[in-house]
Amino acid sequence: MELAEAGENVLLKRLRTKFGKITPGLLVGIGDDAAVVAASSSPTLMTTDMMVEGVHFDLRWTTPFQVGYKLVSVNVSDIYAMGGRPAFLLLNFSALRSFTVRQFDDLFRGIAAASRRYGTHLIGGDISSSPTLMLSATVIGYASGKILRRSGARAGDYVHVTGTLGDSACGLELLKKMKHPIPDKKVPVPGRELPVANSLPLLRRHVMPVAKKPDSFISRATAMMDVSDGLVLDLSRLCSDSRVGARIYAEKLPLSRELISAAAYLKKDPLDFALGGGEDYELLFTSASKKIAGASCIGEITKSGIRVVDHDGSQRKISGKGYQHFAY
Amino acid sequence: MELAEAGENVLLKRLRTKFGKITPGLLVGIGDDAAVVAASSSPTLMTTDMMVEGVHFDLRWTTPFQVGYKLVSVNVSDIYAMGGRPAFLLLNFSALRSFTVRQFDDLFRGIAAASRRYGTHLIGGDISSSPTLMLSATVIGYASGKILRRSGARAGDYVHVTGTLGDSACGLELLKKMKHPIPDKKVPVPGRELPVANSLPLLRRHVMPVAKKPDSFISRATAMMDVSDGLVLDLSRLCSDSRVGARIYAEKLPLSRELISAAAYLKKDPLDFALGGGEDYELLFTSASKKIAGASCIGEITKSGIRVVDHDGSQRKISGKGYQHFAY
Repeated sequence: MELAEAGENVLLKRLRTKFGKITPGLLVGIGDDAAVVAASSSPTLMTTDMMVEGVHFDLRWTTPFQVGYKLVSVNVSDIYAMGGRPAFLLLNFSALRSFTVRQFDDLFRGIAAASRRYGTHLIGGDISSSPTLMLSATVIGYASGKILRRSGARAGDYVHVTGTLGDSACGLELLKKMKHPIPDKKVPVPGRELPVANSLPLLRRHVMPVAKKPDSFISRATAMMDVSDGLVLDLSRLCSDSRVGARIYAEKLPLSRELISAAAYLKKDPLDFALGGGEDYELLFTSASKKIAGASCIGEITKSGIRVVDHDGSQRKISGKGYQHFAY
Repeated sequence: MELAEAGENVLLKRLRTKFGKITPGLLVGIGDDAAVVAASSSPTLMTTDMMVEGVHFDLRWTTPFQVGYKLVSVNVSDIYAMGGRPAFLLLNFSALRSFTVRQFDDLFRGIAAASRRYGTHLIGGDISSSPTLMLSATVIGYASGKILRRSGARAGDYVHVTGTLGDSACGLELLKKMKHPIPDKKVPVPGRELPVANSLPLLRRHVMPVAKKPDSFISRATAMMDVSDGLVLDLSRLCSDSRVGARIYAEKLPLSRELISAAAYLKKDPLDFALGGGEDYELLFTSASKKIAGASCIGEITKSGIRVVDHDGSQRKISGKGYQHFAY
């Protein structure tokens, strides 16, 4: 059944049934003019992000479940990146009238799955028709102690990053070749369905990224942000806000084994994915400490300029590059 | 210059310059991963709404300034409708790469003008390219006392509405004939530019609606919502949430003189605009009092069923009709 056949009121009722439960701290949930949450003794964090079909995702190789899951993850990632704890979610959904109720339900199952993972609760939103599938979400969270801004880095601090870099961008390249989606659940996928062996983690990283929690190192971080538009562009933003520079070492960039073999298959340099590829949703942070469990030290903060030291020791000064909307 | 030529970073910088001021209660504004506001002793209200070109507005007869202004108004209206005070605004902007920087600036001037009017402050958002102009906003507010839900109406209460009804829908009909926009500012417009004399207030009501404040009657209201999808549909939603019915009187519906003459020109019944027309953003509320200054009593709450009493005294039972996305 298409959404045009169901009608907005029916869709809203489905969402009220699925997400209408009142949780602690929630005074008015889905269905009234606005949601109301109880006063909190902590500062409130708010972030919003959107995802547009054809720009942020492609339904040829992404399921609606994955789109919904990712939308929550990318917003939660912004809350974690400030040192916050996500709590509530508002969602705008718009799609073609020919979008099916099955796809609609699938998308909201993805939103529900991610909400369970992060402990967020859908409390409101809006539904509309539109020429393409477009979603936006607002996540509200609370400070759980220290608030970490982009502006706190000082010359001499070390630059750290969680996890591995470039996986998501490489996964996207592979998906463009595959042209079909991977399963929503973590199940083994026959190698013959993948463009290159062991690439499943890269594909999953792209379509269902998981936001990283900074709890284990937050007390020692001085500045933090998430890597959404690529390491170099995001690092240059952090440095700009902190009025500092940075030197990072190519050999220290954390690369997954899967990235290295997939890049070879794609005949590309894995470093290009790690430096310029977006949507890893790892945390980039600075600290006076060089050793931080659960993160890799990739360089240090300097007075000015962003430099990458290559494997042969040569330095290049680089300008911010990465994904920019409306850029050439 | 087109947005594609300017690039996202340049646009973000423009917004940081225009909206970057820190106001009381705001700890981190535009430009970081998330905005941070100080803890408040009042419950927090949150609402989100979107506007899609070709669905919610048409740039042939709406200026970008008006689109921005209206986006803020419709969200603020939801906060007022709960009895809240709007405070902060998050915004998602997406447009074709050929959208111009002049249009972009114009849109954000409209957002700034509405923000000044309502005392809201832009603290974050996201920018993307998309196949059509799409905007979504989240407004955060605080309870200023009583929180008014849709569910508080009781049989015997009187039904009230602020202002006049149907003006916005009638204004839209006229704009579709005019096919050009009216000025953003309140300036006299030569009659020959309008399809019918004295219709400017209807046109303005459609492209630049103003959210209504309930302060003068909130203490006496039992349930409230704003009229965004048409009186009948919205009243049926209020009644459904309150598990009651309502009887309203055609002769008591507040119609503007401008609506009556424009409806005559359009050869339509002004009551159809008043009953079914959306986007008036007036407040619909119930109260044990029959006389409320600044509002019209249009009927009463009954045990069940929504009935309209016509001028001749005949009653018709009606089902919710009004604007529904994805409906036939």
